[in-house]
Amino acid sequence: MASDTIGIGLVGTGFMGKCHALAWNAVAATFGETRRPRLVHLAEARGDLAAERAEAFGFARWTDDWRALVADPEVEVVSIAAPNPFHADMARAALEAGKHVWCEKPMATTREDARSMLEAWRRSGRVAALGYNYVQNPALRQMEELIRDGAVGTVNHVRLEMDEDFMADPDAPFAFKNGAESGLGALDDFAVHPLSILWRLAGPVASAMTDQAKPYASRGGRAVETHEIATSLLRLRSGASGLLTANRAAWGRKGRIAVQVFGSRGTLLYDQERMNEFQLFTREGDGRTQGFRTVLSAPAHAPYGAFVPAPGHGLGFNDLKVIEAHEVLAAIEGRPARIVDFEIGFAIEETVHAMARSHQLGRWVDVGPSAA
Amino acid sequence: MASDTIGIGLVGTGFMGKCHALAWNAVAATFGETRRPRLVHLAEARGDLAAERAEAFGFARWTDDWRALVADPEVEVVSIAAPNPFHADMARAALEAGKHVWCEKPMATTREDARSMLEAWRRSGRVAALGYNYVQNPALRQMEELIRDGAVGTVNHVRLEMDEDFMADPDAPFAFKNGAESGLGALDDFAVHPLSILWRLAGPVASAMTDQAKPYASRGGRAVETHEIATSLLRLRSGASGLLTANRAAWGRKGRIAVQVFGSRGTLLYDQERMNEFQLFTREGDGRTQGFRTVLSAPAHAPYGAFVPAPGHGLGFNDLKVIEAHEVLAAIEGRPARIVDFEIGFAIEETVHAMARSHQLGRWVDVGPSAA
Amino acid sequence: MASDTIGIGLVGTGFMGKCHALAWNAVAATFGETRRPRLVHLAEARGDLAAERAEAFGFARWTDDWRALVADPEVEVVSIAAPNPFHADMARAALEAGKHVWCEKPMATTREDARSMLEAWRRSGRVAALGYNYVQNPALRQMEELIRDGAVGTVNHVRLEMDEDFMADPDAPFAFKNGAESGLGALDDFAVHPLSILWRLAGPVASAMTDQAKPYASRGGRAVETHEIATSLLRLRSGASGLLTANRAAWGRKGRIAVQVFGSRGTLLYDQERMNEFQLFTREGDGRTQGFRTVLSAPAHAPYGAFVPAPGHGLGFNDLKVIEAHEVLAAIEGRPARIVDFEIGFAIEETVHAMARSHQLGRWVDVGPSAA
Amino acid sequence: MASDTIGIGLVGTGFMGKCHALAWNAVAATFGETRRPRLVHLAEARGDLAAERAEAFGFARWTDDWRALVADPEVEVVSIAAPNPFHADMARAALEAGKHVWCEKPMATTREDARSMLEAWRRSGRVAALGYNYVQNPALRQMEELIRDGAVGTVNHVRLEMDEDFMADPDAPFAFKNGAESGLGALDDFAVHPLSILWRLAGPVASAMTDQAKPYASRGGRAVETHEIATSLLRLRSGASGLLTANRAAWGRKGRIAVQVFGSRGTLLYDQERMNEFQLFTREGDGRTQGFRTVLSAPAHAPYGAFVPAPGHGLGFNDLKVIEAHEVLAAIEGRPARIVDFEIGFAIEETVHAMARSHQLGRWVDVGPSAA
Repeated sequence: MASDTIGIGLVGTGFMGKCHALAWNAVAATFGETRRPRLVHLAEARGDLAAERAEAFGFARWTDDWRALVADPEVEVVSIAAPNPFHADMARAALEAGKHVWCEKPMATTREDARSMLEAWRRSGRVAALGYNYVQNPALRQMEELIRDGAVGTVNHVRLEMDEDFMADPDAPFAFKNGAESGLGALDDFAVHPLSILWRLAGPVASAMTDQAKPYASRGGRAVETHEIATSLLRLRSGASGLLTANRAAWGRKGRIAVQVFGSRGTLLYDQERMNEFQLFTREGDGRTQGFRTVLSAPAHAPYGAFVPAPGHGLGFNDLKVIEAHEVLAAIEGRPARIVDFEIGFAIEETVHAMARSHQLGRWVDVGPSAA
Repeated sequence: MASDTIGIGLVGTGFMGKCHALAWNAVAATFGETRRPRLVHLAEARGDLAAERAEAFGFARWTDDWRALVADPEVEVVSIAAPNPFHADMARAALEAGKHVWCEKPMATTREDARSMLEAWRRSGRVAALGYNYVQNPALRQMEELIRDGAVGTVNHVRLEMDEDFMADPDAPFAFKNGAESGLGALDDFAVHPLSILWRLAGPVASAMTDQAKPYASRGGRAVETHEIATSLLRLRSGASGLLTANRAAWGRKGRIAVQVFGSRGTLLYDQERMNEFQLFTREGDGRTQGFRTVLSAPAHAPYGAFVPAPGHGLGFNDLKVIEAHEVLAAIEGRPARIVDFEIGFAIEETVHAMARSHQLGRWVDVGPSAA
Repeated sequence: MASDTIGIGLVGTGFMGKCHALAWNAVAATFGETRRPRLVHLAEARGDLAAERAEAFGFARWTDDWRALVADPEVEVVSIAAPNPFHADMARAALEAGKHVWCEKPMATTREDARSMLEAWRRSGRVAALGYNYVQNPALRQMEELIRDGAVGTVNHVRLEMDEDFMADPDAPFAFKNGAESGLGALDDFAVHPLSILWRLAGPVASAMTDQAKPYASRGGRAVETHEIATSLLRLRSGASGLLTANRAAWGRKGRIAVQVFGSRGTLLYDQERMNEFQLFTREGDGRTQGFRTVLSAPAHAPYGAFVPAPGHGLGFNDLKVIEAHEVLAAIEGRPARIVDFEIGFAIEETVHAMARSHQLGRWVDVGPSAA
Repeated sequence: MASDTIGIGLVGTGFMGKCHALAWNAVAATFGETRRPRLVHLAEARGDLAAERAEAFGFARWTDDWRALVADPEVEVVSIAAPNPFHADMARAALEAGKHVWCEKPMATTREDARSMLEAWRRSGRVAALGYNYVQNPALRQMEELIRDGAVGTVNHVRLEMDEDFMADPDAPFAFKNGAESGLGALDDFAVHPLSILWRLAGPVASAMTDQAKPYASRGGRAVETHEIATSLLRLRSGASGLLTANRAAWGRKGRIAVQVFGSRGTLLYDQERMNEFQLFTREGDGRTQGFRTVLSAPAHAPYGAFVPAPGHGLGFNDLKVIEAHEVLAAIEGRPARIVDFEIGFAIEETVHAMARSHQLGRWVDVGPSAA
């Protein structure tokens, strides 16, 4: 096959599977500077669905056995968008087969599995990225640049909130996500997202004091085992203080990830529900006209311009995945890239596990050196 | 070639050319129910650029002569995203060659050219759609549905504003858009967009009383010939009154298209700069809790769910073009489709020409029966 | 009586009558620099109400005959908050009796009455102010100062909207305001307010092209005689263009007065429903961080600090009347004052009458030299 | 003097002293149903200022010795707006002299003083109210009513934030509020306000886990002793979880008190910087049109209508004090009243002291039975 293409395999065709497929279809036309993805192989447990989706998504062949996809010599990158319990096996197998891996968050449902993925990656010499697409938003990337450039001075306090309402209905039946086997509830389902943002804007967490809560003790007569709400006091490595809270039962919230970064010279604000803008206040200037300015996403905020040359026209959720795909390709080509690799991803997992432990112990818990 | 694909030719690779290319790359994976576009031929006046873009966009071949593309028997649909003065020749040639046409707005730079395009389409038996992508936004489509369902009662008044600031700098040199040969200024560059929205929400304009203005009389020593600002009183066929205003010199506005629809039972609001939400007030309910509700785009608003299954996650400007591409394909396949065809498109052109005449005459001007 | 007090008479105890009463009670404690109002006499057509309100409002005596109040030698200033048809007689009588007058808007229900008030004032040598309290808002005053200081460059375009919904219900019975005798409908009930703001921000109107509309042709079987909606294209003396629209039937709007001022260097925005903030965009600075800044009212915006020494704490509608009372007192004491006097007030009346004429004639109408 | 008046003494003429003065001047005209305040005596440590302010505020006499005011037999109510360290002595003396007391928050700078005030009140048989004016906002009162009526179901989670930026400048010199003698920093300066709101909306706090932080360790070479930032995990008596955070060093925030109340059927939002609106989401209704509705303050929200009969016109910060004054008068007259009395006020003090202890101990601390 042509040296200017790269073979893609995709495992999973649900919400995030389709999102990966759209990104692989769009990335070359959008950025036009990396190898063009060649959609080689699609795996989906249900064979009939696999065939249908392969045609729709433009993949050349399909399978109901993800191991066949991993073994396909034409596949160079494996997109993993299967249910969380499969992530570890798939990622390890792909890395061991010499493939690059782009795996949806969270890494795994247990800390041990996550660690084994990290180790498999370290042995592999391949690129292994996690699907933390929110950090790819040009608005958040611009905020990061502004922080780095000192626009808000030294960051001394941060607040992060992530809220949706798909678990808000008390009358809904017991669901998979209500069972302990699904993981840590709001912590690994939600909190990892603002943590990935926090990592970019203010660095790693040093210690956490966490409280979790169940707004509804039982569903359909069965005790709920996960916590829909998790709130954590934070102390960052940088010395800044902060808080992070997540709520899957927050009526009316649909995709809120609210960020407040307070510094010695100014403040930055962001809300994912209005993902094409951020707000900046700086102490500079005339007291009569100081205020938070609402900055609309624009070509000045890379890589917005790869999508639209005009400011204020807006990107969508799926565009963030296109940016992430581009970063994954850049990493594979050995260029500087902005990905959440398995090192950082594991540190985020360690953080939420420390938070869960803090809740159990009722005291502050250090995140530990592995988060370094 | 396979009967389940359809051959695409694209003319132009600038802002909207790339937007078409992205849409053609994405539409099958997004909707998965129409024939898959086969990217056959790309035309771009600059040959070197044509080659580069053909590779990036995934087109099989390229040309610097758009007539070669139109003559290509594999091309079944021609996307026209070349500069406005070329629209008429290209669209007529494509329709006469038996191709379907998807042409960017405005139709043409003169009324005569627009009319000839309309006539060519009527003779052709093909699909001819105009690129009025804003009306494809699920939020606006939902507003249309709510109006049709009577949620705000009988519409009695509308207000539309479209503002950007790319012409706001008084120190910028004289540009192509400042010359009379570029067309009608704010009227055909901007006003046609809110008019396309108005068409969907409240129907055609019966008569207009328009004022145009030049915020800067000259640029670089040369008199400015087009008007950056156009404002029009409107009377609609429905009997409703309204106003429409457009300003290309509105500092700080980046992609504002603000819509206010007032009815006998409620009000609907929209702003393109926050394209993933609309606002609804209805007279129903308890006076203590009445208010405008901000409705975030969601799978309940078709076809949002084809992009993301979760509410509040947001579409982008380019996604609107994907929806439009899907509608064009549906029309080609003879299914119900929501396109701005050359009939409606010509009525919109007639409206802005009537507005320009109204300004010259200083009185109300009827839009004329062709707008029917 | 003490030379450091000033005797107040108030005519009317409804919405605006109470508002005047509150202002007279508050102004000395708020500003502490003018003569202290002495609440002398209250007039209210209904005697029982007069007595009750006089006690509540703190007036020493009351009457059901406004002429008695005007004749009261202790009364030095007459607040007129009676129904509009009474304004002219009351204001003339008060001025002729040597009183200062503070009269609610509009001046009168006919142009002739308004002119006679203007003439009575010119003969009187007294202060005659109109109740255009919105222009007293520190936020709007700050906007005016910014415009004067060139923060947005030369103003080239303005937009003003005023909307409420008290006439929005199609099932409401025929009301006084639906009859021709009530005046000009949306024009003198609403449009005068944004005109007073426009006067301060961008100066007088040179000519207008107006359309009026009735969302509901009849109420309770009786034809509606006034227009709930009025929209006007504007050309200002300054050369700027603009538009002004008012709608008393705008469901969901409760006190909206939206202002957009476009200049060669920036833009200013305001909305009375969020009266404690304004928005400013300027072309200055780094493209990565340009945006509209939301400026909260603060002590930096005089005379906010007379109410609260801390920024962002907020003034209310009634506070604007306190500021206006203070300006009236300042004018009476011969100090520089920011009032809408009968000269400017009459020019505003002339403007709405020109607008009404424009609607009748279907063409542009000059506002005339009296607006100078 | 007339039995229908009540004698007022005011101690202090700064920010809140003036606010009390304005409220005493306005309350009768606004509500017209209680005894009319008679402004008898003003105390201010600086005699010259006392005289000047007494005249401006309309007090009959003044003193530089607050004990003289307390001893004045004509004074029936003592407004205490002196610096916090004086509150305890003044309140005790006034209650022991048989006066009603209206004291600014916080009660005192030590827990012991606060307790002695509570005990003095219990012995007195008088009304003793604290100045927690934010809870008087009609918007918040409406939210409370909606919660009580079940509009959002069972409250299961709350979030409260209070932020200003008067301590945000790292270059500002060491100030009184930076010293330990000023109290608990953000806890008693700020957190008590959202706690008073929380009390009304969701009831008392059972236990807290708190972290405090100093964004700037020193000022002008002197170590800062108070914490500008305090964040607390909360468990409420009701079983709901929550968090409360306060930051006096939050650049750009001027008067933010953000409230989020999550329930089993909906969500309520509020922000003091836009104090004339609240937001409500309920699960009811059509999925196509669900969203947070922005409810503007209106006569439907008592006692807004006492100020303005039209909705959406807006109250100001000082109006909240007028409402509070009215509630104090109602309580004195033995009518149902909505005040934060010394019982509740002491419970709030106990809560912030428990928070401070939690920070010291690094663990959860129960608020204790005194908060019952």
